[in-house]
Amino acid sequence: MKFIKDFKPGDRVADIYMCKHKQSATTKNGKEYYSVTLQDKTGTVDAKIWEPNSDGIDEFDAPDCIDVFGEVTSFNGAIQVNVKRARKCREGEFDLSLYLPVSSKDNNEMYAQLLSIIKSIGNPYLKRLLESFFIDDKAFIELFRKSSAAKTVHHGFIGGLLEHTLSVTRLCEYFCTAYPALNRDLLLTAAICHDIGKTKELSLFPINDYTDEGQFLGHIVMGCEMVGEKARAIEGFPELLKQQLQHCILAHHGEYEYGSPKKPSIMEAVALNLADNTDAKMETFTELLQNTTEPGWQGFNKFFETNVYQTKID
Amino acid sequence: MKFIKDFKPGDRVADIYMCKHKQSATTKNGKEYYSVTLQDKTGTVDAKIWEPNSDGIDEFDAPDCIDVFGEVTSFNGAIQVNVKRARKCREGEFDLSLYLPVSSKDNNEMYAQLLSIIKSIGNPYLKRLLESFFIDDKAFIELFRKSSAAKTVHHGFIGGLLEHTLSVTRLCEYFCTAYPALNRDLLLTAAICHDIGKTKELSLFPINDYTDEGQFLGHIVMGCEMVGEKARAIEGFPELLKQQLQHCILAHHGEYEYGSPKKPSIMEAVALNLADNTDAKMETFTELLQNTTEPGWQGFNKFFETNVYQTKID
Amino acid sequence: MKFIKDFKPGDRVADIYMCKHKQSATTKNGKEYYSVTLQDKTGTVDAKIWEPNSDGIDEFDAPDCIDVFGEVTSFNGAIQVNVKRARKCREGEFDLSLYLPVSSKDNNEMYAQLLSIIKSIGNPYLKRLLESFFIDDKAFIELFRKSSAAKTVHHGFIGGLLEHTLSVTRLCEYFCTAYPALNRDLLLTAAICHDIGKTKELSLFPINDYTDEGQFLGHIVMGCEMVGEKARAIEGFPELLKQQLQHCILAHHGEYEYGSPKKPSIMEAVALNLADNTDAKMETFTELLQNTTEPGWQGFNKFFETNVYQTKID
Amino acid sequence: MKFIKDFKPGDRVADIYMCKHKQSATTKNGKEYYSVTLQDKTGTVDAKIWEPNSDGIDEFDAPDCIDVFGEVTSFNGAIQVNVKRARKCREGEFDLSLYLPVSSKDNNEMYAQLLSIIKSIGNPYLKRLLESFFIDDKAFIELFRKSSAAKTVHHGFIGGLLEHTLSVTRLCEYFCTAYPALNRDLLLTAAICHDIGKTKELSLFPINDYTDEGQFLGHIVMGCEMVGEKARAIEGFPELLKQQLQHCILAHHGEYEYGSPKKPSIMEAVALNLADNTDAKMETFTELLQNTTEPGWQGFNKFFETNVYQTKID
Amino acid sequence: MKFIKDFKPGDRVADIYMCKHKQSATTKNGKEYYSVTLQDKTGTVDAKIWEPNSDGIDEFDAPDCIDVFGEVTSFNGAIQVNVKRARKCREGEFDLSLYLPVSSKDNNEMYAQLLSIIKSIGNPYLKRLLESFFIDDKAFIELFRKSSAAKTVHHGFIGGLLEHTLSVTRLCEYFCTAYPALNRDLLLTAAICHDIGKTKELSLFPINDYTDEGQFLGHIVMGCEMVGEKARAIEGFPELLKQQLQHCILAHHGEYEYGSPKKPSIMEAVALNLADNTDAKMETFTELLQNTTEPGWQGFNKFFETNVYQTKID
Amino acid sequence: MKFIKDFKPGDRVADIYMCKHKQSATTKNGKEYYSVTLQDKTGTVDAKIWEPNSDGIDEFDAPDCIDVFGEVTSFNGAIQVNVKRARKCREGEFDLSLYLPVSSKDNNEMYAQLLSIIKSIGNPYLKRLLESFFIDDKAFIELFRKSSAAKTVHHGFIGGLLEHTLSVTRLCEYFCTAYPALNRDLLLTAAICHDIGKTKELSLFPINDYTDEGQFLGHIVMGCEMVGEKARAIEGFPELLKQQLQHCILAHHGEYEYGSPKKPSIMEAVALNLADNTDAKMETFTELLQNTTEPGWQGFNKFFETNVYQTKID
Repeated sequence: MKFIKDFKPGDRVADIYMCKHKQSATTKNGKEYYSVTLQDKTGTVDAKIWEPNSDGIDEFDAPDCIDVFGEVTSFNGAIQVNVKRARKCREGEFDLSLYLPVSSKDNNEMYAQLLSIIKSIGNPYLKRLLESFFIDDKAFIELFRKSSAAKTVHHGFIGGLLEHTLSVTRLCEYFCTAYPALNRDLLLTAAICHDIGKTKELSLFPINDYTDEGQFLGHIVMGCEMVGEKARAIEGFPELLKQQLQHCILAHHGEYEYGSPKKPSIMEAVALNLADNTDAKMETFTELLQNTTEPGWQGFNKFFETNVYQTKID
Repeated sequence: MKFIKDFKPGDRVADIYMCKHKQSATTKNGKEYYSVTLQDKTGTVDAKIWEPNSDGIDEFDAPDCIDVFGEVTSFNGAIQVNVKRARKCREGEFDLSLYLPVSSKDNNEMYAQLLSIIKSIGNPYLKRLLESFFIDDKAFIELFRKSSAAKTVHHGFIGGLLEHTLSVTRLCEYFCTAYPALNRDLLLTAAICHDIGKTKELSLFPINDYTDEGQFLGHIVMGCEMVGEKARAIEGFPELLKQQLQHCILAHHGEYEYGSPKKPSIMEAVALNLADNTDAKMETFTELLQNTTEPGWQGFNKFFETNVYQTKID
Repeated sequence: MKFIKDFKPGDRVADIYMCKHKQSATTKNGKEYYSVTLQDKTGTVDAKIWEPNSDGIDEFDAPDCIDVFGEVTSFNGAIQVNVKRARKCREGEFDLSLYLPVSSKDNNEMYAQLLSIIKSIGNPYLKRLLESFFIDDKAFIELFRKSSAAKTVHHGFIGGLLEHTLSVTRLCEYFCTAYPALNRDLLLTAAICHDIGKTKELSLFPINDYTDEGQFLGHIVMGCEMVGEKARAIEGFPELLKQQLQHCILAHHGEYEYGSPKKPSIMEAVALNLADNTDAKMETFTELLQNTTEPGWQGFNKFFETNVYQTKID
Repeated sequence: MKFIKDFKPGDRVADIYMCKHKQSATTKNGKEYYSVTLQDKTGTVDAKIWEPNSDGIDEFDAPDCIDVFGEVTSFNGAIQVNVKRARKCREGEFDLSLYLPVSSKDNNEMYAQLLSIIKSIGNPYLKRLLESFFIDDKAFIELFRKSSAAKTVHHGFIGGLLEHTLSVTRLCEYFCTAYPALNRDLLLTAAICHDIGKTKELSLFPINDYTDEGQFLGHIVMGCEMVGEKARAIEGFPELLKQQLQHCILAHHGEYEYGSPKKPSIMEAVALNLADNTDAKMETFTELLQNTTEPGWQGFNKFFETNVYQTKID
Repeated sequence: MKFIKDFKPGDRVADIYMCKHKQSATTKNGKEYYSVTLQDKTGTVDAKIWEPNSDGIDEFDAPDCIDVFGEVTSFNGAIQVNVKRARKCREGEFDLSLYLPVSSKDNNEMYAQLLSIIKSIGNPYLKRLLESFFIDDKAFIELFRKSSAAKTVHHGFIGGLLEHTLSVTRLCEYFCTAYPALNRDLLLTAAICHDIGKTKELSLFPINDYTDEGQFLGHIVMGCEMVGEKARAIEGFPELLKQQLQHCILAHHGEYEYGSPKKPSIMEAVALNLADNTDAKMETFTELLQNTTEPGWQGFNKFFETNVYQTKID
Repeated sequence: MKFIKDFKPGDRVADIYMCKHKQSATTKNGKEYYSVTLQDKTGTVDAKIWEPNSDGIDEFDAPDCIDVFGEVTSFNGAIQVNVKRARKCREGEFDLSLYLPVSSKDNNEMYAQLLSIIKSIGNPYLKRLLESFFIDDKAFIELFRKSSAAKTVHHGFIGGLLEHTLSVTRLCEYFCTAYPALNRDLLLTAAICHDIGKTKELSLFPINDYTDEGQFLGHIVMGCEMVGEKARAIEGFPELLKQQLQHCILAHHGEYEYGSPKKPSIMEAVALNLADNTDAKMETFTELLQNTTEPGWQGFNKFFETNVYQTKID
């Protein structure tokens, strides 16, 4: 299959792509045409269907997968596909993983690692709480393993939430060896739960967009509430411990202006914020470097608020 | 009874006051004495017991009410009481309302007004939700009516939470007549519930200080969770309506830097934030003017970030 | 008449519209054409006159009203009118109120309400001051009743200044009943005068743009000066009262960064700032909701700095 | 005469000083005493009169000059005068300039220089405006020459306003030679008038404190209004020129957060802001260096927001 | 020669211009064409070569100078050149100064003035340091005289660094006469050296872009290091004097957020920051006025953060 | 030995302490006395010598160690020592490590670990550079091993710079395993060198205060310069590599407002900033917890900008 990121003017296109968006429009001369966005896991491309009523053009809509025949052109310096034929495909004709971004790491393996960390928690209440999410709650597990960690920024792919959670949790494990004043059980439990609200904040792929409750409440407050509910269902769960765990979740963005209603008051909350921030920045830079085409200066980056550069040292 | 705000150097003191704080200390010459803070509803004053082991000095501790005999002096420009005799009083000997700050408005009347607004809510789910708090939940009602709305700033007295809630709700009623695009049922329900988390954030008088969960979670998140729990217990409560109500509570501080994890996204949330802010500023200025001794410039005020002035126009 | 907001590709256009802007341009092939912006009270639309020298095209310029004959097309996804004939209309052929935005409320009625509030002012100096503007000064009254309250944001229509002033003043009346520490005469006078500088800051419609003195001095300073001049002309006007009134005007934006050279120092100035801010936000959200086409999320809003949502509760 | 800045513990005091402040107080033992602040042009010092009713102690109050006999002691590390005798002086017994801070430059000479710059203005309207203040208006001239430019910061002495105005104006003269795009007449007129509002914002020495109108309106708005009034009284004064001059005054603090209701829009306003800022910083550092006792690091300085250092290069 | 700023639709073009940028592209119909940016000292213009393979079109690339024959058209309201013939020129056929922006002041004269100021420095170490740069170091002198002071903002032309340095230094000379507490030798040396790091931060014209070390280290740190190296090479150079000079360079942007790692701690560093800021703002406004086509309001300016206006007073 | 942190009113004192500060003062009655600050590794305490001329009081000054005989009293709620006898000790009489704060970790062991990391660097230029500091430069090594990492905040003890450097470097080692896009050699070299400028910024204990060059230039710029010098001395050291290493040092505070003249542009610089920040926060919280006397709320903490709490989970 020819991937979208490799399209060059003059190329033939004869493969299946996902239709991400479709809109009817009119040319200056009053003729109708379709403006379509095609997508595969490497990116998206604009496409035009100038003869929407011709024989080879099926009825279709987003998010159908369609078999496209056409030609790559260039318009105003941007790549565009001139679509001659478009056939809507049936399920089974295509492999969905080619069309949606997926974590490069094995989902089963990552989940197994997460479970093994849960096994290592000593405090029985915290361990029980984690099990009630990650072992008992099948619906939650399904969502958690498929969710991305973001709509646009780092870890914005299927499995991204699991990958980010595991990475943050391991960083916290390292912190526990380096800074013995940290309470390992509390910190690791908070790390594993810190973003579980994202299972409700974002819908699954191919949509991967904010839900109503995501916009009204946000993953921080929803995650805090989810932990509160499960904890209340565990007999004898110490009230103060529950509050400290919820505090870690509320405070994990570190600053009010990043949406945390509380600043970190306990060392474990400070550590979780540092781990979350570290993984976000390291993954963002890694993704940025993966998308560069040549080393050297990459221009101004809004996230890092400066020009960024790809190091190459031999 | 002679009130603390009227103490002048040279005055005799022979009345009952609440002991807010008591600490043992040592003079330069190694002699033990007690440093005590006395309180009534008009303020607090430092007091010293130079002869703690003499006959007239009972054993007592905060928050006992004690019958004090002594003299008012001045030390480094501040008023101080030199205590000669101190007798611990029994319940019944004193009227507690003289020693703790209380709303100047009648608690029963304010509560009746609140209930009559609840009665006027048309949406059955929102009305049911309000009733489940303000009619059914006796423990909550007890706390809500006694709580202050703050530790130090505006409405920091018994009944302050009720008074502030009623004032904000009425302001919102006015908004509904002036701006018809507002949804009255949603806005008034949000106004009535916006600070209910304060019943858990602050302990009752005479302590009136932040609780553990108040510090770890804050009244915004706790109020949101309280509303969520009651709503889930009401059959058929529309999910989106619940989210919008919770959103109003989360967003009622208006800005991230004031501890709201969400900025107002719906017109009712914007209105609630404006009403809350207005009542806070108007009450703060009113309390400030009540504490002035003469009109004119009152010096720099941290809350208003400028010099403030008491207007007098005849 | 067919309103601009209803134009669809393929429509015929045969009505009178105001020419808001007209510019000569040249096609890639060197042919001259006119680029014109047409306007009615529902919005504006781009139009092209490809044959500017043909018989049916009159000489005209902004802000003429012209009788247009043409066709609606779509260019790059935007609506455009292809003008075939354009005739310049004489006064009397058209109703200006169809082409300029006007307050939905009756101007006479609003003004009568304002005058009745003025009548209620007790302090003779303040009442005299208001009368010298709103009863005696015909030129001022003419401007005040026609002015908008803004170029682009809330109340940006004919009568907008009057509507906003009345709304703020009524909010202040409500405040006076809720917060008795406020001085009613001073607050209402300040509310009525707070934006009178806008009669000089913005030119009238159809221009509705900043004047030179508007840009050099601003409505806050100009309004303060206008009040100062009228007050000095009233014998015996108390100096301190004049300063407090001017202070309310100077401080009504509340913060230095919003262009107020003083922060509110008196309770009336604080109240005026709250009322002005409240009306601005409520009206902005109301106008925003009036312009939505379907309920739900409306995307990011710069003024409210968040995604906004249109509530619909049945 | 022994100056206050030279007082050392153990010194005898037998000279005339100004009483800046006097307050009655009571010792721990209930004895009355007076707490007095003495002042001369080199600074202030705390003084105590432990026997206020003894023979040698006259009745007096601020701002009397009194003939003091006493001893310098040290209390908690600070210098204090123990006053034994205090006699109130009659006018004529003392030279006021010893007790109030005065510019080190000759007032007549500075004023002559200012007038000679005014003479050099070419534009007849601007020149007339300046003359109407600095030649015709005797009451204004009296105030302008005596005023300080500040209560606490730079140029806080008699003649300070004149000295600062002259220094800013000369800097602007230099700018005109270096940057020919500047309009000399407008810039110099604005420089000369930029702080005239301070003649009303601060009362004269020995008070040198903010007036009511100073606090309510501020010198920026008052100066703008003063210029507007004088300009309106000059026949034919061009309206736009008046606005630009007023704009320079309004914008001379450069930023909203420093109290300017407008940011500089014309090059002359930018230049005036730079000149004002430069003179403020250079004079502040100069005064700071004059008050140091030894070269090297002087500790953290709030105005410069860093540790400051006195350079000494041989 | 016809300058680019004077191009109007319909004009013939038959002159030599510099090619700043050249890119191959494809039309909607798949035909190749070249998109070229032409430049002279008055500006740049887009140009298209629709028949790149025709006889009259030479091979060429940026930054060649080419002899262009074509026609000026207008596309989407912007000027565009339709190139018919393009011949690559040889060195000697054209005068480079017509194609690159150059200071309007004579380079030799400015440099002579700088040397005469250096001659006036009294401190032998500072004088030696300046000579080691500006008299002895031929490679540095070559760069310094040709460099611009910026990529895009003020003084962005050949000789701009020299012009800016001279202007700042003279302003500092004026400061020394107005504020005698300043150390003239230190301040003038710092002024002359303050931007020498720009010789390494920006490459020379026609590139005039940031170098790698410019982006990694910045001219502030590089200038500080350059001064440190030269000073260490001068026997007996006082250590403290070196530190103070380096401090002036590090602190010359005045605030951390403008890239200075230290805030000014000595009066000379404060003065240098003021002079640098003044020259930047005055030159920016001067360049802005030179580029206006008619007096009056020029729209919003990002650098001055407000609408700007060209004064015209007759 | 009785440590200062354990002093209670009424205690006898009869041990050797370091004199940190000594000052002569005068009582209200004109009698001379000495105000002394005594120090051991657990803290400092005020002491008074009321009879400075009595027999038992030797001549001594800071930083002498003195044998003190006296009594602990309480003054205004603070502990104070009333010194009766004070004898100046000779070297050898006392163990200096009892009087100055020292890292709790073994200096030799930490240094060995640092050297073993240096050994693991693969790039020959970076390895050589590290060796030129940490193996070849004896004077540097001496300073580096004894320095603290701060005057007041975290790691403010002998060996603190080494401890902090090792901790940051190990965190970076962990990052290299978790984020393979990082260049290990560059990141670890930058980590080891990031604070070497502190060897010049702070003087050694017992002073541990900012030096002149520390205040004028700062450890960031000095460290960058030190690395530049050593790199230039290594033949063939790649220029770009040197710049990237210096960039990591310049950018390691992450933001302009924290004194970095550059923001991190390469992934290694981002990682170093995160590691430095993490170690600073974790160590600060650890030290804070070590200084608490009981678990629970510890009040407002300026560094963390919130109330902090000591977790205790059993």
